[in-house]
Amino acid sequence: MADSQNKKDLAVARTKITFDVKDMTNHIYGGSTNVEHRRHIIDLIAKEPVFNKDDWAWLNHSDAVKRGVAMSTRLAEIMIEHDLDDLDFAILTEVIDDTIPILQHNSLFLPVIKSQGTDEQIQRWVPPAEKFQIIGCYAQTELGHGSNLSRLETTATFIPETDEWEIDSTTFTAAKWWIGGLGVLATHAVVQARLVLRGKDYGAHVFIVPLRSLDDHKHLPGIEIGDIGPKAYNGFSKMDNGFARFNKCRIPRENMLMRFSKVSRDGVYTKPPHAKLSYGSMVFLRSVLIRHMALYFSRATTVATRYLTVRRQFNNPTSRNDSALNPTLETQVINYPMVQNRLFPMIAQSYAFFAGGSQMTSMYFNLLSGLSSGNVEALAEVHAMSSALKAYATTFAAAGIEECRKLMGGHGFSYFSGLSHLFASAVPSNTYEGDNFVLTQQMARYLLKEIKTARSATPERVTPFSKYLLLGLNKSALSRTTSSVTGAEDWLKPEVQLAAFEHRCARLAFELSDAVDQGGLDLENPKTWSDHNIECYRISHAHAQYVLVLWFIQSIHDAIAEGSADPATIKVLERLSHLHALHTIQTNLADFVEDAYLSPSQCQSLRAQVKALVTSLADDAIGLVDAFDHPDFLLNSALGANDGDAYKRLWDKAQTEPLNQKVVCDGYEEYIRPLLKKHGDIKL
Amino acid sequence: MADSQNKKDLAVARTKITFDVKDMTNHIYGGSTNVEHRRHIIDLIAKEPVFNKDDWAWLNHSDAVKRGVAMSTRLAEIMIEHDLDDLDFAILTEVIDDTIPILQHNSLFLPVIKSQGTDEQIQRWVPPAEKFQIIGCYAQTELGHGSNLSRLETTATFIPETDEWEIDSTTFTAAKWWIGGLGVLATHAVVQARLVLRGKDYGAHVFIVPLRSLDDHKHLPGIEIGDIGPKAYNGFSKMDNGFARFNKCRIPRENMLMRFSKVSRDGVYTKPPHAKLSYGSMVFLRSVLIRHMALYFSRATTVATRYLTVRRQFNNPTSRNDSALNPTLETQVINYPMVQNRLFPMIAQSYAFFAGGSQMTSMYFNLLSGLSSGNVEALAEVHAMSSALKAYATTFAAAGIEECRKLMGGHGFSYFSGLSHLFASAVPSNTYEGDNFVLTQQMARYLLKEIKTARSATPERVTPFSKYLLLGLNKSALSRTTSSVTGAEDWLKPEVQLAAFEHRCARLAFELSDAVDQGGLDLENPKTWSDHNIECYRISHAHAQYVLVLWFIQSIHDAIAEGSADPATIKVLERLSHLHALHTIQTNLADFVEDAYLSPSQCQSLRAQVKALVTSLADDAIGLVDAFDHPDFLLNSALGANDGDAYKRLWDKAQTEPLNQKVVCDGYEEYIRPLLKKHGDIKL
Repeated sequence: MADSQNKKDLAVARTKITFDVKDMTNHIYGGSTNVEHRRHIIDLIAKEPVFNKDDWAWLNHSDAVKRGVAMSTRLAEIMIEHDLDDLDFAILTEVIDDTIPILQHNSLFLPVIKSQGTDEQIQRWVPPAEKFQIIGCYAQTELGHGSNLSRLETTATFIPETDEWEIDSTTFTAAKWWIGGLGVLATHAVVQARLVLRGKDYGAHVFIVPLRSLDDHKHLPGIEIGDIGPKAYNGFSKMDNGFARFNKCRIPRENMLMRFSKVSRDGVYTKPPHAKLSYGSMVFLRSVLIRHMALYFSRATTVATRYLTVRRQFNNPTSRNDSALNPTLETQVINYPMVQNRLFPMIAQSYAFFAGGSQMTSMYFNLLSGLSSGNVEALAEVHAMSSALKAYATTFAAAGIEECRKLMGGHGFSYFSGLSHLFASAVPSNTYEGDNFVLTQQMARYLLKEIKTARSATPERVTPFSKYLLLGLNKSALSRTTSSVTGAEDWLKPEVQLAAFEHRCARLAFELSDAVDQGGLDLENPKTWSDHNIECYRISHAHAQYVLVLWFIQSIHDAIAEGSADPATIKVLERLSHLHALHTIQTNLADFVEDAYLSPSQCQSLRAQVKALVTSLADDAIGLVDAFDHPDFLLNSALGANDGDAYKRLWDKAQTEPLNQKVVCDGYEEYIRPLLKKHGDIKL
Repeated sequence: MADSQNKKDLAVARTKITFDVKDMTNHIYGGSTNVEHRRHIIDLIAKEPVFNKDDWAWLNHSDAVKRGVAMSTRLAEIMIEHDLDDLDFAILTEVIDDTIPILQHNSLFLPVIKSQGTDEQIQRWVPPAEKFQIIGCYAQTELGHGSNLSRLETTATFIPETDEWEIDSTTFTAAKWWIGGLGVLATHAVVQARLVLRGKDYGAHVFIVPLRSLDDHKHLPGIEIGDIGPKAYNGFSKMDNGFARFNKCRIPRENMLMRFSKVSRDGVYTKPPHAKLSYGSMVFLRSVLIRHMALYFSRATTVATRYLTVRRQFNNPTSRNDSALNPTLETQVINYPMVQNRLFPMIAQSYAFFAGGSQMTSMYFNLLSGLSSGNVEALAEVHAMSSALKAYATTFAAAGIEECRKLMGGHGFSYFSGLSHLFASAVPSNTYEGDNFVLTQQMARYLLKEIKTARSATPERVTPFSKYLLLGLNKSALSRTTSSVTGAEDWLKPEVQLAAFEHRCARLAFELSDAVDQGGLDLENPKTWSDHNIECYRISHAHAQYVLVLWFIQSIHDAIAEGSADPATIKVLERLSHLHALHTIQTNLADFVEDAYLSPSQCQSLRAQVKALVTSLADDAIGLVDAFDHPDFLLNSALGANDGDAYKRLWDKAQTEPLNQKVVCDGYEEYIRPLLKKHGDIKL
């Protein structure tokens, strides 16, 4: 194949785009100011040698952590030099493209002190932390315990004689574990430990514990400390996830963060006024994860779309085949319907995650401003929504990245595809900030409460995103409901799409409610909540999908209303929104047909419409991923670079492999030659 | 938590097993002789220091390849020392637990010469290869081409003057790429290249090309050669997947393997008598992959089941909760219904893959003996079946391993869980030996031919596993068919289960056939084969699932008939078989309801029955995975070891992390201290 064919293929594909890519980019990021600011931050990082990614592929965990440390300290300097704030920090973490030891200093250590410290404590700890005179981490998880705070084994026992806390890990399962920054970098930790006062256990509280000497960085007496070792898929390799075990370490009483709970000099414990106030930070972390997933997932679809545009394999005699014009060329892989039907719904889903990420973040900030004026009404819904969306989006995005990698065939398995690093960075989100399966119970619990409201004298008090529950009040009517679709074109009506999702959510929620009320379906054992967790999982995902469909549709309505996007942009967004909604139904079809809501012929017209929508996006696929505006530095993919020169880049990257710097490999004299020569020389 | 609790939990779980684990192991591996032989080979490897896995986690690609070379040469010696054959080699590759440079010497280089070389060529090349005086690889894939043999760019041009071939790669996309063993080890390659004779292109043929000097291992003149770099997820890290580019390299005419096609001294080309004869090796490689997947996947379910038995988290007030007896203990995670409903169907699937692997291998060997007596009748069916099963089993197993990892929560993301290495080893099987999506076309094509037979005057000639096609001859009868299930217990009848799968396969096959015949469903463009590939994918997976359900059922019938397993073993196998069949229906429910084959109430009773079956396996889960008989050496998992001592092992592994051998990390003086001290010393 001619060496320049790759680049030519991508250039030709770009001539067919039906909308203005810049306009789409502005729509995705909420305006050109945001787009430029993101680019500015990216450039800030991309130009620094320490953030260069060229040798990442060769680093083992020790080398990678050392690099992570170098990246950490430079990041700290950049934040001070450019006076960057928390929102910039979010972009920085995207751009750096790996977890590094200092991240939790800004994302957990400082926020916890600011939110749970008294004014004096904030004054004492925050300024040196902001100047990086101390570097902190957040130590909650233990070897034996993760989410179950009440069963943490680390204790903080008050010693009245010296006005101190004694931090202790009795067994090694009490060791703090997984703590980012703890392995080699942090000088201090915010430690979650059970507060023990005169023999009484008051549950988990937070304490600032010095870990390493500020003079020589050696760990302090009584603390066993280290790195927990490499992670799956070489993920988080630059992060020093660490462990710490405390052997009766003493800290002053004032090192307990006392904005809410307090312990006085004479050992009197005061309870916090609002137990739920600490929800805020969890809700925030989960809310921003939706946007993170949009960023991650859209990088994967960008790489796959570009590579599949330049990869040619076999011959497909369709009208779209330019090998009709040039018979020496094979078909571009992206022109195969099977490939389009796998890839384009993922592009649509990326757009849905961007729309959902914006909405979820606004919801969170609305909640915050409400809370600050004492309004806690929205807390329960936002908490449930962020849980359901986090569980769904992180599951989908990680699996989708791997699907993009597999779509790229053999070369997708090269490290240089860039997607394995992306998967390894994204997939732990399925587990952290609440395991995705456990988390789905939050939405289910919330909906059960909402069903009570729907059945009460004031059903109008059902919260906006649960209004569909009103459909289920008349059970027999619900079970008789069928979709109004009569032909394939009906599937393109947003109200038809939403009705399907609402019906499904209502049915699943009431089935759960009935099962809980009646004490069971068919099983013999007495029912408990955990016996319903499969149904919780189903309804939570159903709700998340409904909300994402709704928000994607609304975001287009808003853009039309505000006149913030070109008509051509709107047109392709509408196709994406249709594809997102209908492909989600198709993927979860059983939920829509097992109660006969959809008929056999409606299922057929749905499948036909999905296929037609996919086909309609063929000319725009490359523009849709270009619009995500991910520069080559961020993608770090030989196969997905902006110029399309995939084979050349893959070739060039291989030449840099350290093994290739030697003509004869290490181990030849020791292993290979003795084997070859064992039976004497041979001439062939 | 008391340090010994983990071990106690596993020991207690084992007291509840209802069957004899050894009897089950014998059933899985087809008798105690096989079990002992496998153990013997495992011990052979486990006792050799070079195969020790303790430091695998720290190796970068260069270190790993050097280790791979050391493992390779020792493996070669062991094969000679113990006079091991090809079947032993299959066990060896399982036990070594990683791809290493020498593997393709035995699995491809030698078999290709033996099957495609003339008797003289075999006599010349095989003895030195078997003594490892030369070491070979198999070079087919190129940077620009994978499966499409006819478009390979490497050429072998006949030079009559010197009676030689000139092997040439005109552009770098013609470079051989991904070739295992090529990067650093191989001295020779079997190269696929297009044969060019007097300007005419005769398509791909195989040639033996010397790569490296037998004197000093330097690559020969005119060959650019090297390693292609690291792979995704740190997979295949010890394998020197390599590239080679040939610049008009000359080899003697006799280096073309000429059992089938021949070129004489005077440049006359003779065609092969049977073009399809080379199918055999592909069919074999795909057939054995089913068994490989059983071995891989069962390792993942073993690790997950053991860890989740000893991991305790939160409190679940059910009757199975031993925290009722000991209130200081939390609930074993495996006792949560959600966990059981995710894990136990995967255990059942592992058993189904073992049963399917045996059947597929027998089918292949029956084919072989048929072929040797000139009977090619079974070739098409075995080819299609091995394609469909390979596509389904490798997809399912890789995804299932990752699902097991996620089931294990936070610690599942540690390298020491062992499952990330397993996933990285298993997932490339989704792409190699035929991309799983492309491969599904084989079964679809086969079924379309079988439909013609079914519609012919001799419908009885439909092959055994396609008999369900006869159901589709009366289209309206097929569309009116519904399941006979009237209550949950009916789902436990194998004939009911099989009827459901047969109905689904028949419907999907005839829908595809109609679409192909009629030129399309609803789309505007003229139909081509590739427009039907989504439907091909569906019918191929449907057929694979049907056959696996059928074979699992049959394997139990056979065991009963032969009296080869205890009644208690049979009983639990029947539950597994039910769960496998019904969970497969549940997971693919849309296919069974979108034509109203199942009614809403049948769907409900199906779900209830799946739940009940899961519950019924709770006491046996640990026995079912113990029966896979995977020793700790093979599992290489801190969390899944046989003694259950998960936390202790995780702790101990972390202590061996190289980073922890230093009190203060590399980079402190260079990076950390300057940052901490920038604003002067601080006292807190």
